Amino acid sequence: MEKEILELLTEKKFVRLRSMLCEMNPADIAIVLEEIPDKDLPIVFRILPKETAAEVFAYMESDMQKLLIEAFSDAELKAMVDELFLDDTVDIIEEMPATLAKRIIKQTDAETRKMINRLLAYPDNSAGSIMTTEYIDLKRDMTVDEAFEKIRRVGADAEDIYTCYVIDKSRQLLGYVTVKDLLLNSRDSIIGDIMEEAVISANTLDDKEAVAGQFERYDLMALPVVDTENRLVGIVTFDDAIDVIQEAATEDIDKMAAILPSDKSYFKTSVFSTFKARIPWLMLLMLSATFTGAIISSFESKLTVFPALIAFIPMLMGTAGNCGSQSSVTVIRSISLGDIEFKDIFRVIWKELRVAIVCSVVLAVVNFIKLVVIDYWWLGTFDSGSQLLEIAVVCVTLLITVIVAKFVGCSLPIAAKKIGFDPAVMASPFITTIVDAISLLIYFTVASSILNI
Amino acid sequence: MEKEILELLTEKKFVRLRSMLCEMNPADIAIVLEEIPDKDLPIVFRILPKETAAEVFAYMESDMQKLLIEAFSDAELKAMVDELFLDDTVDIIEEMPATLAKRIIKQTDAETRKMINRLLAYPDNSAGSIMTTEYIDLKRDMTVDEAFEKIRRVGADAEDIYTCYVIDKSRQLLGYVTVKDLLLNSRDSIIGDIMEEAVISANTLDDKEAVAGQFERYDLMALPVVDTENRLVGIVTFDDAIDVIQEAATEDIDKMAAILPSDKSYFKTSVFSTFKARIPWLMLLMLSATFTGAIISSFESKLTVFPALIAFIPMLMGTAGNCGSQSSVTVIRSISLGDIEFKDIFRVIWKELRVAIVCSVVLAVVNFIKLVVIDYWWLGTFDSGSQLLEIAVVCVTLLITVIVAKFVGCSLPIAAKKIGFDPAVMASPFITTIVDAISLLIYFTVASSILNI
Repeated sequence: MEKEILELLTEKKFVRLRSMLCEMNPADIAIVLEEIPDKDLPIVFRILPKETAAEVFAYMESDMQKLLIEAFSDAELKAMVDELFLDDTVDIIEEMPATLAKRIIKQTDAETRKMINRLLAYPDNSAGSIMTTEYIDLKRDMTVDEAFEKIRRVGADAEDIYTCYVIDKSRQLLGYVTVKDLLLNSRDSIIGDIMEEAVISANTLDDKEAVAGQFERYDLMALPVVDTENRLVGIVTFDDAIDVIQEAATEDIDKMAAILPSDKSYFKTSVFSTFKARIPWLMLLMLSATFTGAIISSFESKLTVFPALIAFIPMLMGTAGNCGSQSSVTVIRSISLGDIEFKDIFRVIWKELRVAIVCSVVLAVVNFIKLVVIDYWWLGTFDSGSQLLEIAVVCVTLLITVIVAKFVGCSLPIAAKKIGFDPAVMASPFITTIVDAISLLIYFTVASSILNI
Repeated sequence: MEKEILELLTEKKFVRLRSMLCEMNPADIAIVLEEIPDKDLPIVFRILPKETAAEVFAYMESDMQKLLIEAFSDAELKAMVDELFLDDTVDIIEEMPATLAKRIIKQTDAETRKMINRLLAYPDNSAGSIMTTEYIDLKRDMTVDEAFEKIRRVGADAEDIYTCYVIDKSRQLLGYVTVKDLLLNSRDSIIGDIMEEAVISANTLDDKEAVAGQFERYDLMALPVVDTENRLVGIVTFDDAIDVIQEAATEDIDKMAAILPSDKSYFKTSVFSTFKARIPWLMLLMLSATFTGAIISSFESKLTVFPALIAFIPMLMGTAGNCGSQSSVTVIRSISLGDIEFKDIFRVIWKELRVAIVCSVVLAVVNFIKLVVIDYWWLGTFDSGSQLLEIAVVCVTLLITVIVAKFVGCSLPIAAKKIGFDPAVMASPFITTIVDAISLLIYFTVASSILNI
């Protein structure tokens, strides 16, 4: 496909190229255009029909959008901005350097400019930042026929026409009707009679992830956004909600893996940006391992007397770390999905403790069997009888650390959330470091008391 | 809210209760009903209007659905099933024990039964398993007016009326029109003239996560599903796609944390089920730590000569593990999002190697400064000059392991995907175990050559 397009381009067969591109989906055109040389990009772009061009533009990565805007004349830029949905325009402006952003805004009329500036002012993670102002509003005394007339008149410019919002003179949100309701009611029905008044709405400053969660919970197609006086100011559509849901999941996954989250895809992130996203946690975790090092150093002389104890350190720390991160990751994801709140902390701890006890007993027993039956009796890896005591040390440590690790793993994220920290940052790597230190302390304490050292 | 409902219930004020529930969203009613005693559930349920009751029912957890079905008379069950969308009915049947499932199916007419059985036969992770058969199909020679007439006639039972699919006599999918297109075109336009022919469709057996990905890529509201002969058999709607996206992310997160994924929410999963989901990996990882233990044991005699080396084991293993899981998690998520495919493996490795080199140099230098300046000169933790050599061992090991860890972390998931394994299972814990063993081997090899032991 890309090859064919490149060929048509070099042979300057623009008519064929145009008809070929017109049969493709705008999202796919945007991907294909990434492969063609930068200098040809404006040429290909200019042969697309105006409307398709705007759609393709909205799907492009920001570096290509920048390239095109720089190549556009003011008239071309204006034509493009006129075709774009307002929320897409705002997204593009946010990614552009200041001079280009100003050039874009200059091409819009006074009212659009006011709207853009208002949308730009909403905080990055707010409902306001993902909403669009192009929706259909109706009055309660309209008939179904009048409503259809309005939809026909302004529908081409609206991002979602299937949910229409009913407002009064001061733009207070009264309810909504769907086009399905309009179609299934008689043409002279009054909107006020058929509208649904129990409308789920969001505030402009609500967290956008919470708003996306509403889409999932209520199977919404669009959600109205109101200001502090309950005046309708915009809507969020389901496609933006899906993007927020995916971004939020990726962000959580990044944080759990000790990476600073980025909103760019893998190959779009430069080596240096990837490095910058990864090095802070690596550095912090490396330096915080000083504690585990110090704990081992302080026990060094005793370890040289019982050197067999050294070999179990990775197993004990690893198992404790895995137990802790299982609990923390489960709890963090449940917090993200809204299944766990702060008030549930004791229910969570109670559940995790029971799971932990079963896990710890099973792990300790299996470990005991492995060490005694296989290593001690069968393989004879251990060389003296006193080392049965060492096996006891390992198993008792396992019993205790698994329970402690799961306790730390489940309670820390909830506590973090409560005091305003990000629970996802509390995940695996950070908890692992804490759990590592704790498991070593438990190991050496148990060893000291059982082995009398 | 819940309190008030419970009060109205015990005081048997059913009229007030009904009007209060009717003002709520079905999804919220389902949540509130979870809090009331089991024996009252059928009572409350029966006072809801029939249509609302069906919606609430679809939102409920399966244990409550089971309870209600057992309490229903056959007539009540039939009324409920008639109101439910077909795909919801199928979801419910899938969760019920065989006897209840049979009872539900018995209440449906012959045609619905055939449809249900066909939907039940699709594999769990296929597009067929999440599609619904209640959509609107049009013929290409219909006019816009005729199309609206059909929508009005069958629209009440269709799950999505806003995208209508155009088919021929043998049900071959020809294209689609949206209700927006219908509204914006004149009433006597012919469907065949205004329909969009470049339709994105899925096959019944396509992976449901891939289908959900199409919704994100093309901002779709619904996606038609065809059989192997390109005959339209159903549609997937965006709300089901959102559920699949969330489930897939949770599944990936679970696997990365060494948990067997479950599709139930945290508190709905019993202690024993949670235990069963967690213990297999814990056990496997504990037993596989035998390797790291064996590596340390084989080096034991040398470690007692240079005991300071022991204290660095957790730091080196931890840093290597973190580096590896950063790479693997990033790559796994990118594979899930469709940003990385097998053909990209060398691009990924090349990028990760560059990131790894920068990370390893920075970490080694910082570690060197910390050990020499702070520990050696300032604090005097080290007690003899020869231990400068040990510092060299640690820093050289760090340099090598970081690069190896990132290489293993990025290449293993892609290779796993290629040979048909789940890349997410290759994530953190499994890779950590491999990386742990490798980092110890590197450590001891470097120590042997630098310290001449």
